[in-house]
Amino acid sequence: MHANNEIGTVQPVAEIGKIAREHGVLFHVDAVQTAGHLPINVNDLNVDMLSISGHKLYGPKGIGALYIRKGVRIDSLLSGGSQERGKRPGTENVPGIVGFGEAAAIAKAEMADEAVRLTLLRDRLSSELLTRIPDSHPNGHHTLRLPNNVNISFDYVEGESLLLNLDFEGICASTGSACSSSSLEPSHVLLACGKIAEEAHGSLRFSLGKFTTGEDIDSVIEALPRIVKKLRAMSPLAPKSVGLVR
Amino acid sequence: MHANNEIGTVQPVAEIGKIAREHGVLFHVDAVQTAGHLPINVNDLNVDMLSISGHKLYGPKGIGALYIRKGVRIDSLLSGGSQERGKRPGTENVPGIVGFGEAAAIAKAEMADEAVRLTLLRDRLSSELLTRIPDSHPNGHHTLRLPNNVNISFDYVEGESLLLNLDFEGICASTGSACSSSSLEPSHVLLACGKIAEEAHGSLRFSLGKFTTGEDIDSVIEALPRIVKKLRAMSPLAPKSVGLVR
Repeated sequence: MHANNEIGTVQPVAEIGKIAREHGVLFHVDAVQTAGHLPINVNDLNVDMLSISGHKLYGPKGIGALYIRKGVRIDSLLSGGSQERGKRPGTENVPGIVGFGEAAAIAKAEMADEAVRLTLLRDRLSSELLTRIPDSHPNGHHTLRLPNNVNISFDYVEGESLLLNLDFEGICASTGSACSSSSLEPSHVLLACGKIAEEAHGSLRFSLGKFTTGEDIDSVIEALPRIVKKLRAMSPLAPKSVGLVR
Repeated sequence: MHANNEIGTVQPVAEIGKIAREHGVLFHVDAVQTAGHLPINVNDLNVDMLSISGHKLYGPKGIGALYIRKGVRIDSLLSGGSQERGKRPGTENVPGIVGFGEAAAIAKAEMADEAVRLTLLRDRLSSELLTRIPDSHPNGHHTLRLPNNVNISFDYVEGESLLLNLDFEGICASTGSACSSSSLEPSHVLLACGKIAEEAHGSLRFSLGKFTTGEDIDSVIEALPRIVKKLRAMSPLAPKSVGLVR
């Protein structure tokens, strides 16, 4: 993964690719999270294959792209028609392809300015929540992270309860990956980072985007400390000394 | 296949399904060609699984549906996220799904009238071409066929040449399946029907649709005999006695 979808950490893909190349290992990178947010150069990154997705950069859903370095030969996952040199059989989704291309061009043009804007919003959201809510812990790398990702663990509360309460106030967040949004299992990413299940369960991911404003960030900064305090006051798990908004 | 994509023949799916069921064999049917054109009832057809595609019934490209009878368990072709019960991982193409549903509802409402209209156009196109062009032969079943499909072989001419000449006059047709449109191999369907390679090469498929008018049919009836005659006059293969429009 170029960047992790849950905690936003940007991986040292170029270095990994260099090692892979030195050992003759083909290297595929999932860049779905970074495309449109960070510069991607398949040569600089030393990758042989790289996947991106349309809807992650404001293009259509249902369309993606796989870069394959010239000379790399791979089997097809699907078989059938000879479209796309047999690599992806089936009638091509031309409107999706065109829309994806346009969205990518727009994302590329806006990327540099948008990364600055989102990073400022991201850091304000993160630092304010960590300051205002005791027993909260940032997840993922502090600086090597996506400009649009904030992930924080809150002790003594359930992420699902936080989500429901935020939702009542019109604030959308998630507890892990969208792929497992119907699952109540703790995030495998946070467990791999050394969190225990209870900590992973009390984690929230905020994804910022081109339509996120400073006022949106203000709303979360106001609402979440209040919600955490309320939930902790009801929780038998929380020690009496916590749950007070500083 | 509920109906063949090249020659339009509707297969006796219900009878095949009955045999499959009697022998405990799971039965999947590709109904991409028939959905929106012929009634589909998975119980009447005795099928366990059935595939349809959005763009074949004027819905979006890049979206399809697989019916799986309750109790039938199949492995997934793809692995990854848990979307659609793990059967089709990846972020759902919600606009595509909604558009497909709307298109299916419209197609169902219009199907009966449209089938009558297209069948009349189809039969006029077919009988006029066969009458006006000597040494031409219909492919597929005469009556058990899609209302929107005409497939005819023309001796002593190349399908590719016919296509190019039709294209010059604004008429779209194909020589086989769209999946193999970049291939010059003879149609495996026509070969399986007993045609030799030369005959298969001289075959055209016309697909009619909701935007096809009687005037469109008239244009083809006027143009194609003229084009076939011209090409045969230039062909060293054609005996002198043929190629004259009757």
